Amino acid sequence: METSIRNHLKGKVKGIVLGEVVSEVEIDTPAGVVASVITTRSVKRLNLKAGDDVHAVIKATAVSVEKP
Amino acid sequence: METSIRNHLKGKVKGIVLGEVVSEVEIDTPAGVVASVITTRSVKRLNLKAGDDVHAVIKATAVSVEKP
Amino acid sequence: METSIRNHLKGKVKGIVLGEVVSEVEIDTPAGVVASVITTRSVKRLNLKAGDDVHAVIKATAVSVEKP
Amino acid sequence: METSIRNHLKGKVKGIVLGEVVSEVEIDTPAGVVASVITTRSVKRLNLKAGDDVHAVIKATAVSVEKP
Amino acid sequence: METSIRNHLKGKVKGIVLGEVVSEVEIDTPAGVVASVITTRSVKRLNLKAGDDVHAVIKATAVSVEKP
Amino acid sequence: METSIRNHLKGKVKGIVLGEVVSEVEIDTPAGVVASVITTRSVKRLNLKAGDDVHAVIKATAVSVEKP
Repeated sequence: METSIRNHLKGKVKGIVLGEVVSEVEIDTPAGVVASVITTRSVKRLNLKAGDDVHAVIKATAVSVEKP
Repeated sequence: METSIRNHLKGKVKGIVLGEVVSEVEIDTPAGVVASVITTRSVKRLNLKAGDDVHAVIKATAVSVEKP
Repeated sequence: METSIRNHLKGKVKGIVLGEVVSEVEIDTPAGVVASVITTRSVKRLNLKAGDDVHAVIKATAVSVEKP
Repeated sequence: METSIRNHLKGKVKGIVLGEVVSEVEIDTPAGVVASVITTRSVKRLNLKAGDDVHAVIKATAVSVEKP
Repeated sequence: METSIRNHLKGKVKGIVLGEVVSEVEIDTPAGVVASVITTRSVKRLNLKAGDDVHAVIKATAVSVEKP
Repeated sequence: METSIRNHLKGKVKGIVLGEVVSEVEIDTPAGVVASVITTRSVKRLNLKAGDDVHAVIKATAVSVEKP
């Protein structure tokens, strides 16, 4: 499978806060911690847990730019 | 200003493809290149150009997770 | 910090519904109430509470248009 | 038709920048100008033009919060 | 009301997982089950329940493409 | 690779409108045509063309619900 999604940041799951419907997954990447909100069903289907090797995946249209 | 937006990845503008309405900004970060689509008006307002120090900014609800 | 994000609507926090992972923040603006879903961690980090002066922040690619 | 989308801000089209694929529509609302990026096909299908009465429509999960 | 939103997929509510702030609504469509995360307030305002005829509504900028 | 993204709708590319920065890809699915806006670089990298078997991929937080 090839995907049009441009951004795939390698990292490791740092922690998960499980909610009823959605969960927060924090991913340690070389660019710092990336926070993700996904459905709890996906957390369970992927059997995500701290320490897992994962990618943070982000569509380019969802990325903004800040300049100091 | 403090923001609720969780993800701010430090990087440097690698290149910009200018379009009439939206532009693609590629940002070199320690986690690899991050592609962003923003309005061309914002590119001009921020006077973005290759080499600028910037942050890629992403709301957590826009981040998905992949597991190899 | 300058941002590429185009929309910043001034308002006041009207109410917050706190969830385990995400919370709903309603903001009174001159254009009516704007509802936002952000992580509960951000609600706590910003110490958001009813009456606070805030901005609702929205990337232009997330805005649609309706015509009566 | 009723919709789950929470935010519908009344306004008037202030200007349109037409691109090949996507266009920028600026909407004057009581909370200031709201910028939207939609497909040019939608601009044509809705026959949008400056002065039209419209709503800016935004899903709550796409709204962030900033605090001064 | 006409909308700029391009995608409206006809279906029937298959199931709802209610959370405090957001809920997951699964919709049976001819293209398979489509999962949606909306605010619980919208679930209640629309009085959504299993079996309801609904549309899954998606802005084109939120759709990616995969190729096998 | 397993992904947290919940929605993958099978279809065939119906047509592509190429822009400088972003392109519109229309996908014929059993639920009707699904329109997608992705970067033109992704269209080229995936070598997308009319007739290709693809999936439309959508994060659940980007899906709204309408009720007639």
